[in-house]
Amino acid sequence: MLSSVLLHHPTHSGLPLAFLLLSGELSHADPVVPILIASIFITLGAALGGLLMRWLKQPAVLGELLVGLLAGNLGYYFASPTLTVLREGDNLSRISSLALSSQYNLSEATLKILPPGPHTDLVAQLLGGPQGQTYISVYAFVDVVSRIAILILLFLVGLEISLVEMKRVGKYASYVAILGIVLPMALGMGAMKLLHPNNALAADLFVGGILTATSVGITARVLRDIGRETTEEARIILGAAVIDDVLCLIVLAVVSGLAVTGKISIASIALITGKAALFLVASLGIGIWLMPKLVRLLATFGVHNLKLLFGVSFALLLAWLANVAELATIVGAFAAGMVLNSFFDREVGGASLHEMLTPLESLVVPLFFVWMGIQVKLETMASKDVIIAGLTLTIVAIVGKVAAGWGCPPSMNRLAVGFGMMPRGEVGLIFAGIGRGIGVVDEGLFSAIVLLVMITTVLAPILLRATLGVNPTPAAQSPAGSHH
Amino acid sequence: MLSSVLLHHPTHSGLPLAFLLLSGELSHADPVVPILIASIFITLGAALGGLLMRWLKQPAVLGELLVGLLAGNLGYYFASPTLTVLREGDNLSRISSLALSSQYNLSEATLKILPPGPHTDLVAQLLGGPQGQTYISVYAFVDVVSRIAILILLFLVGLEISLVEMKRVGKYASYVAILGIVLPMALGMGAMKLLHPNNALAADLFVGGILTATSVGITARVLRDIGRETTEEARIILGAAVIDDVLCLIVLAVVSGLAVTGKISIASIALITGKAALFLVASLGIGIWLMPKLVRLLATFGVHNLKLLFGVSFALLLAWLANVAELATIVGAFAAGMVLNSFFDREVGGASLHEMLTPLESLVVPLFFVWMGIQVKLETMASKDVIIAGLTLTIVAIVGKVAAGWGCPPSMNRLAVGFGMMPRGEVGLIFAGIGRGIGVVDEGLFSAIVLLVMITTVLAPILLRATLGVNPTPAAQSPAGSHH
Repeated sequence: MLSSVLLHHPTHSGLPLAFLLLSGELSHADPVVPILIASIFITLGAALGGLLMRWLKQPAVLGELLVGLLAGNLGYYFASPTLTVLREGDNLSRISSLALSSQYNLSEATLKILPPGPHTDLVAQLLGGPQGQTYISVYAFVDVVSRIAILILLFLVGLEISLVEMKRVGKYASYVAILGIVLPMALGMGAMKLLHPNNALAADLFVGGILTATSVGITARVLRDIGRETTEEARIILGAAVIDDVLCLIVLAVVSGLAVTGKISIASIALITGKAALFLVASLGIGIWLMPKLVRLLATFGVHNLKLLFGVSFALLLAWLANVAELATIVGAFAAGMVLNSFFDREVGGASLHEMLTPLESLVVPLFFVWMGIQVKLETMASKDVIIAGLTLTIVAIVGKVAAGWGCPPSMNRLAVGFGMMPRGEVGLIFAGIGRGIGVVDEGLFSAIVLLVMITTVLAPILLRATLGVNPTPAAQSPAGSHH
Repeated sequence: MLSSVLLHHPTHSGLPLAFLLLSGELSHADPVVPILIASIFITLGAALGGLLMRWLKQPAVLGELLVGLLAGNLGYYFASPTLTVLREGDNLSRISSLALSSQYNLSEATLKILPPGPHTDLVAQLLGGPQGQTYISVYAFVDVVSRIAILILLFLVGLEISLVEMKRVGKYASYVAILGIVLPMALGMGAMKLLHPNNALAADLFVGGILTATSVGITARVLRDIGRETTEEARIILGAAVIDDVLCLIVLAVVSGLAVTGKISIASIALITGKAALFLVASLGIGIWLMPKLVRLLATFGVHNLKLLFGVSFALLLAWLANVAELATIVGAFAAGMVLNSFFDREVGGASLHEMLTPLESLVVPLFFVWMGIQVKLETMASKDVIIAGLTLTIVAIVGKVAAGWGCPPSMNRLAVGFGMMPRGEVGLIFAGIGRGIGVVDEGLFSAIVLLVMITTVLAPILLRATLGVNPTPAAQSPAGSHH
């Protein structure tokens, strides 16, 4: 106890405490407190958004995104220091990284990283102020927790899907994935020819490439919100998203190679493909062979919290290995869920992993989506050109992915599969950021892509719910509902 | 997906990927990966330690502490870069804080913060290297999670104890708390007179003050490990620890005031006492009056994950308010648990908060204790004077707190209450750190206090288990056991 005693630091012992509190000495108190405050606000905001959507019969995730979007933009508009700084998101990571590795402090690093202007001056002033480091530590924590949350979400989705079921839909998942690469690419290039007829081919190819990305996190969440994560359609979407992740890597290698050097490196494409294939074969193959043996050994200890520790560690391990193979970490977490699906709970006994992780999920996953909403900067879209380009690309992006749903047999809900493949999430942004780095994506086009990401992310839950959902069941409304 | 595309940053597109990986470009991959790796190692280490202790019929927490202690010190001995940096613990926070706010980079900041020597040079070199910022982000995450873990632990303990039961033991808890302040203080001053006869009275008073601290985290964990958190003795220990936290604040204000200015500030003592009393009365009083109304309103929504979100938010809120009142955050989390104890689960229905939080507890709480173990630097104790002073103060500290158990009526297990009050944990260290800042605690004495903290922390689980535990029940061995 008494970790707050640092408040009484002797050099101030002559001063009244109230003065110390006002002078910012509060930052000497337990460093976890600002993080607690941020967590309380985000959690309650997420709950509010979820309740509102329950009333509107929409998936809770939509409410969380909107609460974040409103909080971030109103906070910016009304000059809330905390929100003004936090919505800079990944820029904060770049700023603190520069400050830690150079002679600049946080304030100077801000001026180096962000484009010059009054907004940057304000952020620099806030980061140089007494609360500057508190903002950085709140950002770092919320960011890491939200990244782990999305791993837990995909692990839970994987736990619901067995490899056998997945193999059964493998063919259609491949069709959907390939269509979902080819169509948006072709349509995107066509739209670019229309918008900017004089652009270089490399730039058109790059924008087409951006439209191929699929960010399956939001779809996975909607499927859980409405209790549809075990349907045939859900399996196809998730399988296609994994294949898409591999294909998209290859597309990026090709288009950025073309844009920079003017040629395609066959060796680098072979390496990327080989690593991804090696990861998938090794994690699924060895997993299926080795895991039952390990799990049987584990069961002999009869310690039930070991089950949870082992399951979660395995998910984190595959997420790490996926990253080593240059795949997204969520592909690894999803694969881990599928590997453990068929036998883990049966062999070890006790409460199911799913049952134990659901409360944790309902604490941290909403945070991911509120945090995503907070980082959306509506003010970057206040230009006619941006809106025209953004809407054109959005339509093309939606049509391309929705048409990919026709890779499924007619007996399935093709529209739902297409809607599920629609969101670009942060992936499109990363892709666009690289394009901006090479110089093939200018500021206006970048903002247009941000608009595209926003619209596809907000529309996906509504459209998925409309095509898949009947009436929300009680279980669908409460992730913790499995405890009833 | 595809967050790993940053690996293909265009400026490197001519280089083979393997080269990029080797050259440390891996840090451009998903930033969560190093944190996943650290979490896997800590979690599996904790599980290993827990299993070993199950075999030795000791509380799991002891195994976690020992695994951390071994990992940290062997890692340092065999020059593991990661462990060498991570065991610097809070120093890393001071170093990155300086780097962020000044013209120094991480490496230069290390040289400013740590005492000069080859070890400091090594740490500075590692923090200036390609993995430097990764170490900082791993430290920051593990540190925050372990601070939140201890809040969850105390919240769960609070949930098991009702205010009515607490009031019943209030008288004895006060006796134990007061004896637990007066006896260690007096004995500590006596021991100091013996060890350093020529020391100033202020210094002796300060060391006596250090011995009054009680860190109840480890006791709470042991009580849960052996399934004894609802006994009369457990309530007395926890009640006494809360009162002790308030008294200890006052002692620190008095002794540091005396050491620096030579006089006692009555106003500051009154302010500290007033704030602490205000927090306790307001949180418990208003909590008991307001919470049932709010919870009944909550129950009408019928959304079960709201129950978890609300319960956890309330715990975090009181932790924050406790910190505003300059009490330890864990006092707030414990108070929140007690307030919600009697009616929350009954009014809202569904799975109990306890049931929902136990899996989360078994994931994050072991991390706190492994992390505590990692930060213990055995090499600072390699001196005869330190060992003599440390052992003397340890004996005095144990005798003082154990004797405080005699504040209970003879019908109770006085020895168990005394052992429960024994650990100083991080509190003693913070107190000693302030003393070093004022100049009344020299380096040798500081190391002796580190030894004292270590010994009381490692002995407490063993002694508590010996006096309270019969045979470990299955439930006692698995925090997730309530799901059977």
